[in-house]
Amino acid sequence: MRDSVKLSSGRSYLAIPGPSVMPDAVLQAMHRASPNIYAGELVDMTATLPGDLRRVARTAHHVAIYIANGHGAWEAALSNTLKPGDKVLVPASGRFAFGWSEMAEALGIEIEILDFGMQSPFDPDRIADVLRADTAGQIKAVLGVHVDTSTSIRNDISALRAAIDAAGHPALLMADCIASLGCDRFEMDAWGVDVMVTGCQKGLMVPAGMSFVFFNDKAAEVRATLPRVSRYWDWVPRAHPEWFYQFFGGTAPTHHLYGLRAALDLIHAEGIEQVWARHEILARAIWAACARWSEGGALAMNVTDPGLRSHAVTALRLPSPRATELRNWLEQNLGLTLGIGLGMAPPDSPEWHGFFRLGHMGHVNGHMIMGLLGGIDTGLKALDLPHGTGALDAASRILAGGDAA
Amino acid sequence: MRDSVKLSSGRSYLAIPGPSVMPDAVLQAMHRASPNIYAGELVDMTATLPGDLRRVARTAHHVAIYIANGHGAWEAALSNTLKPGDKVLVPASGRFAFGWSEMAEALGIEIEILDFGMQSPFDPDRIADVLRADTAGQIKAVLGVHVDTSTSIRNDISALRAAIDAAGHPALLMADCIASLGCDRFEMDAWGVDVMVTGCQKGLMVPAGMSFVFFNDKAAEVRATLPRVSRYWDWVPRAHPEWFYQFFGGTAPTHHLYGLRAALDLIHAEGIEQVWARHEILARAIWAACARWSEGGALAMNVTDPGLRSHAVTALRLPSPRATELRNWLEQNLGLTLGIGLGMAPPDSPEWHGFFRLGHMGHVNGHMIMGLLGGIDTGLKALDLPHGTGALDAASRILAGGDAA
Amino acid sequence: MRDSVKLSSGRSYLAIPGPSVMPDAVLQAMHRASPNIYAGELVDMTATLPGDLRRVARTAHHVAIYIANGHGAWEAALSNTLKPGDKVLVPASGRFAFGWSEMAEALGIEIEILDFGMQSPFDPDRIADVLRADTAGQIKAVLGVHVDTSTSIRNDISALRAAIDAAGHPALLMADCIASLGCDRFEMDAWGVDVMVTGCQKGLMVPAGMSFVFFNDKAAEVRATLPRVSRYWDWVPRAHPEWFYQFFGGTAPTHHLYGLRAALDLIHAEGIEQVWARHEILARAIWAACARWSEGGALAMNVTDPGLRSHAVTALRLPSPRATELRNWLEQNLGLTLGIGLGMAPPDSPEWHGFFRLGHMGHVNGHMIMGLLGGIDTGLKALDLPHGTGALDAASRILAGGDAA
Amino acid sequence: MRDSVKLSSGRSYLAIPGPSVMPDAVLQAMHRASPNIYAGELVDMTATLPGDLRRVARTAHHVAIYIANGHGAWEAALSNTLKPGDKVLVPASGRFAFGWSEMAEALGIEIEILDFGMQSPFDPDRIADVLRADTAGQIKAVLGVHVDTSTSIRNDISALRAAIDAAGHPALLMADCIASLGCDRFEMDAWGVDVMVTGCQKGLMVPAGMSFVFFNDKAAEVRATLPRVSRYWDWVPRAHPEWFYQFFGGTAPTHHLYGLRAALDLIHAEGIEQVWARHEILARAIWAACARWSEGGALAMNVTDPGLRSHAVTALRLPSPRATELRNWLEQNLGLTLGIGLGMAPPDSPEWHGFFRLGHMGHVNGHMIMGLLGGIDTGLKALDLPHGTGALDAASRILAGGDAA
Repeated sequence: MRDSVKLSSGRSYLAIPGPSVMPDAVLQAMHRASPNIYAGELVDMTATLPGDLRRVARTAHHVAIYIANGHGAWEAALSNTLKPGDKVLVPASGRFAFGWSEMAEALGIEIEILDFGMQSPFDPDRIADVLRADTAGQIKAVLGVHVDTSTSIRNDISALRAAIDAAGHPALLMADCIASLGCDRFEMDAWGVDVMVTGCQKGLMVPAGMSFVFFNDKAAEVRATLPRVSRYWDWVPRAHPEWFYQFFGGTAPTHHLYGLRAALDLIHAEGIEQVWARHEILARAIWAACARWSEGGALAMNVTDPGLRSHAVTALRLPSPRATELRNWLEQNLGLTLGIGLGMAPPDSPEWHGFFRLGHMGHVNGHMIMGLLGGIDTGLKALDLPHGTGALDAASRILAGGDAA
Repeated sequence: MRDSVKLSSGRSYLAIPGPSVMPDAVLQAMHRASPNIYAGELVDMTATLPGDLRRVARTAHHVAIYIANGHGAWEAALSNTLKPGDKVLVPASGRFAFGWSEMAEALGIEIEILDFGMQSPFDPDRIADVLRADTAGQIKAVLGVHVDTSTSIRNDISALRAAIDAAGHPALLMADCIASLGCDRFEMDAWGVDVMVTGCQKGLMVPAGMSFVFFNDKAAEVRATLPRVSRYWDWVPRAHPEWFYQFFGGTAPTHHLYGLRAALDLIHAEGIEQVWARHEILARAIWAACARWSEGGALAMNVTDPGLRSHAVTALRLPSPRATELRNWLEQNLGLTLGIGLGMAPPDSPEWHGFFRLGHMGHVNGHMIMGLLGGIDTGLKALDLPHGTGALDAASRILAGGDAA
Repeated sequence: MRDSVKLSSGRSYLAIPGPSVMPDAVLQAMHRASPNIYAGELVDMTATLPGDLRRVARTAHHVAIYIANGHGAWEAALSNTLKPGDKVLVPASGRFAFGWSEMAEALGIEIEILDFGMQSPFDPDRIADVLRADTAGQIKAVLGVHVDTSTSIRNDISALRAAIDAAGHPALLMADCIASLGCDRFEMDAWGVDVMVTGCQKGLMVPAGMSFVFFNDKAAEVRATLPRVSRYWDWVPRAHPEWFYQFFGGTAPTHHLYGLRAALDLIHAEGIEQVWARHEILARAIWAACARWSEGGALAMNVTDPGLRSHAVTALRLPSPRATELRNWLEQNLGLTLGIGLGMAPPDSPEWHGFFRLGHMGHVNGHMIMGLLGGIDTGLKALDLPHGTGALDAASRILAGGDAA
Repeated sequence: MRDSVKLSSGRSYLAIPGPSVMPDAVLQAMHRASPNIYAGELVDMTATLPGDLRRVARTAHHVAIYIANGHGAWEAALSNTLKPGDKVLVPASGRFAFGWSEMAEALGIEIEILDFGMQSPFDPDRIADVLRADTAGQIKAVLGVHVDTSTSIRNDISALRAAIDAAGHPALLMADCIASLGCDRFEMDAWGVDVMVTGCQKGLMVPAGMSFVFFNDKAAEVRATLPRVSRYWDWVPRAHPEWFYQFFGGTAPTHHLYGLRAALDLIHAEGIEQVWARHEILARAIWAACARWSEGGALAMNVTDPGLRSHAVTALRLPSPRATELRNWLEQNLGLTLGIGLGMAPPDSPEWHGFFRLGHMGHVNGHMIMGLLGGIDTGLKALDLPHGTGALDAASRILAGGDAA
């Protein structure tokens, strides 16, 4: 192992599953004086955001912008659709389904979790069965995480809608697209999603600190029946403000809004279909490399079926504590930071150091992915971790020739 | 009136009562790549923030940081101390007392407002009377706005504590220091404040999007008795995180934290006592100018007694619609933006255009205040608004010679 | 004198006669990755600069861009028009005429200086007399400083051309517009200027490090007759590059070019006539204040006749060492930095501390000038310097009502 | 070839041999208001630069900082050591030796070029022979380019000194380290270099626009004998300023100086020996990949002997026009920009499109180099360019295990 000379001085590369790499245009847009928050350019610019957000989410319906992180958006979505005592069904294929459930429980909502483990997606049939059994209509919503960042499983949200419909159940379909929006294809209206939550710091390429709840008219009607909604989370004034100040329930997140404007400009200049295709090809290159490394080696992708893998994040295993050793080596020696494993084992358990994740979301292109993979290939060698050969060659072949599937 | 040549090309100056002028050091600190949110420099740096925040608030107790604006901090403070059906007493000397009350009502809390109008501070005796009459102990908290941004009245929070004590009432004292912290002297522990809320975009000089709730052990005990607290607002994990991710109830507001670090460095390099003294002298210069203008003129300060005026914001009147005309003229001709009147009259009522406000909070110094006043003096002349003379001379005399009172 | 509380924490204001205050748009444009210097966006963008520079200089002729400061542009202009042994006539009304002469001397050029002192402009008649006496045609160029930054005298360049023509002399007219371009009206072609030099850090509002030489066909013909021109200073490839790399005699000043693009956008969005008018009104406000202070006081403007004063810089006197004391007090107490006196007395002579200068060039507007004057008014009081009253009132009256003369 | 989906949206990567990738810390340091150029923090900070520059150049002698690009530094070095009619000997192993010669010729200096072609370094014996033959002592200096950016040949400057000494010749040894300083080991004093020129935009990691001339006492003595030195290029006041303004022959390059300060901090925090070792290992990884590609393929490194290759730049060949096609494909499809071939063939000749270069200088680390190589590997495949396999594997093996040789 080389230990005398560090090769880290250069651009740092944060390849964790969010926050993602921020485009220069976004950071530049945020480096500015505070604007007036009652009139003028900020007001005019903000008016352009909802439409461009809708185009990313593929919806013609409503969007509320929150100064909050993704956990806040979770709470906002729940607060506008459920009241204490209501029940939600939560199919789980990763830690974040449990996290959302915990937010619901803290609001007094009853939760029913269908746990599909850390390596499997939702089974729509089982979900339909549970809904059919709910003859009393206690379940008010199904909370589905599109891509669970902890496992990198990508669930079929359209199939979830089909399951609900097959059961003839009136529950709202609420989707968490925090890790997927702007990376994996998502079609809110076409897929029949009633409420969708997301954050700004992944596919939307804005520094952490803002989140979004999209909702359709059916969800709005449910909201109208609630006896009480927290003023901060209430989506009505945010989605339909009578004056600017209500957009954000008080003072606007001025600088984040300018950053978001710049990011949406980038996304729509490229085209959302093209953005999805880029993520897909880059993900396939990563998978091709991982597949090679895992031949005769200890590295393994968490999700076996490529059709169930996110295009934004990839969860991997190495015998503990080698995953952590690899992450540390790459950061210290090459300036490359990978994501920790999350939810696969209790923190500080012996198993915890056996998982890691790659983020490949948002502002990421061909040479970056080859740098990410080339870095990992270097680390595997430096640490004498057994691994199959030809990984980088397999990845560059995908980037060179691959059409999006 | 000069109308042919605009004199606005140059630095814009946003002299509204928040967001305030951002220091270059803060904006530079925010212009950076996203950091890892699980380990490394962000984690280390964030650990330094609570102590330096406490020094600004003059407390040895607890602080929770929220990704939210001031309205979010209001809701957070309420959510950790009150449950539906509880009652709060709200002495009001401006619009923001009503705003906080509305947040409480939306949470199912009963409110009792003692309205002291738009030009008077709290009357501690009347507050004590109400508390004495609450023999059933229904009132769980008194919500006091230290400086109401709409009126620029500065209430005596210490006297509010004395009133509660005089009544022998166990209610929590909760203070809103959104407009005052880092500008007007505030001593959380010495003044007996149990809960204090503030935002980042005024005296703390960070772009809007982050807020804070400080609380003492008495408030923490009340929190412990609540049957249910929203996970997002729960201050326990934020103030006492078991691991970094809990600090912010999920993803950290990475860039705002770096901005806050830079701002706290500026504040403590100057010294908080010196920061208060600077704001006081600058405010006295503004008042001296306003006093002169108002002689024989139509301009008037909203608060008559200097001892009741905030050092961070000054509310003023001009016969409608001259206030709005003045604001528009200054922005278009000199590059200087003043604050709208807020809460003094219904928006779009004929009276609405008769109020405006000056923000003088945070990153503001002697030449800026003379530019602000010189700009207004120019506008009064350009618009032929009757006004007394010698205003600027009176202001510079204060800046030249004045010790803080 | 107030000495206990500093009022400097806030925006610093550098009111020296260059570098001037940089617009945010310029600094933002420079905060970026290096571009390719052989092809692509930089090449395309750079092609737009000469035309927009010509519009500022009011010329249809040629411009060469140098990575150099103003002293470099001086040397460039000399190197393209003169050879060792040639002679130049240099009318002087300030230090910078001598500075340019020294650059010429070091190149082996003979200089003849007509010194009009530190308070008087050129006398065209005397210049014509000298030229008429040069029957041998030894004088190859007349070097005229438009605005001498040291004295703030503005010379009549058009009258200088008339004097040359009246003498029927073939000498080139070379003008130094380093302090004036983009501030004071300058019309290169209409005024018959053959060569003009300027820098980027004053009226052009770009950080120091780039300068320009404009020249017409007559000057180009002189250049063609020279036996030898230094490759770095040679304006031919810079003004008429065969390929991009020649534009800058090697590697391009990438970031300065982006800054210049942003600055030219600001100038032409406002309109150059409007830019000149703004500077004139702001200068008149400064003069009005200075006139009042000087009544019964020791402060005095260096240039008595308003028609001879620059609109970009104002040189002032106070009994030594009060000028330096005033500058120091303002910087330490108000965050306001004034310019030192330059060339009026030898550095570190007793008289040296009796002069100072105000820069009011480029990105400067109404509230800034009132802040500058209000700061000085404060300093005069704080230091008990005798001064007339009503200065700020006089200034705001100009800003309120004044049309450009 | 994949042509439907572009993979370029992400960080752009400019891998040309200068300007190099700018560190965030450098760009941040340059995003600031202009400082006072006569006193205060700029003056204090600038005083720290020469010492830290000397440490990079390994010299205890003098340094002059110029607002100029590398071509300007060439002219500065010549202007301080030679007069018209003097003669220089220029061993050439690339285009830049000719470029420097042309600058000399334009100053009236006689040049004698020893051309070693585009693939060979200097031959010290031949140089010694020429010097021995100069019995009249007409040759005043030998101009040696350390690393010629056009060919990526690294000459042995120490051997050049030995050749001069072996010939017993008094000529100055002047070295061009524009491409090498801060990348390839360079020891000015130990190697007996009298004058060294460099620029800021490569190993020094500052945006283009500043350059440097280092010189020892022997060179200073030569300077003292010259009858005339251009004021702008004169290194005496720059290296030994009596007051700050002379440091830069007029206005200082304010923002570049702050950038340089940040860059020197990075370099010395890492340690110059470590910086050299990092460049060496990264270069060896690049060579390992290129060696593999060239097996059975058309790609070829320009320099055969690894001991003669620069660690900062690598020149490569592909059958024309495939080099240009590869560059274009990588920029458009992956966001990766490679350098054009320079000097290997006349621009726009058929052969011109058969060369390209990789820059790997300054702020460059392990994952970046793997991204660069992975990108090229992708491009070779996409364009069906025959190439050997295992290139990336060979590179990662070097990064994983390689000690610097």
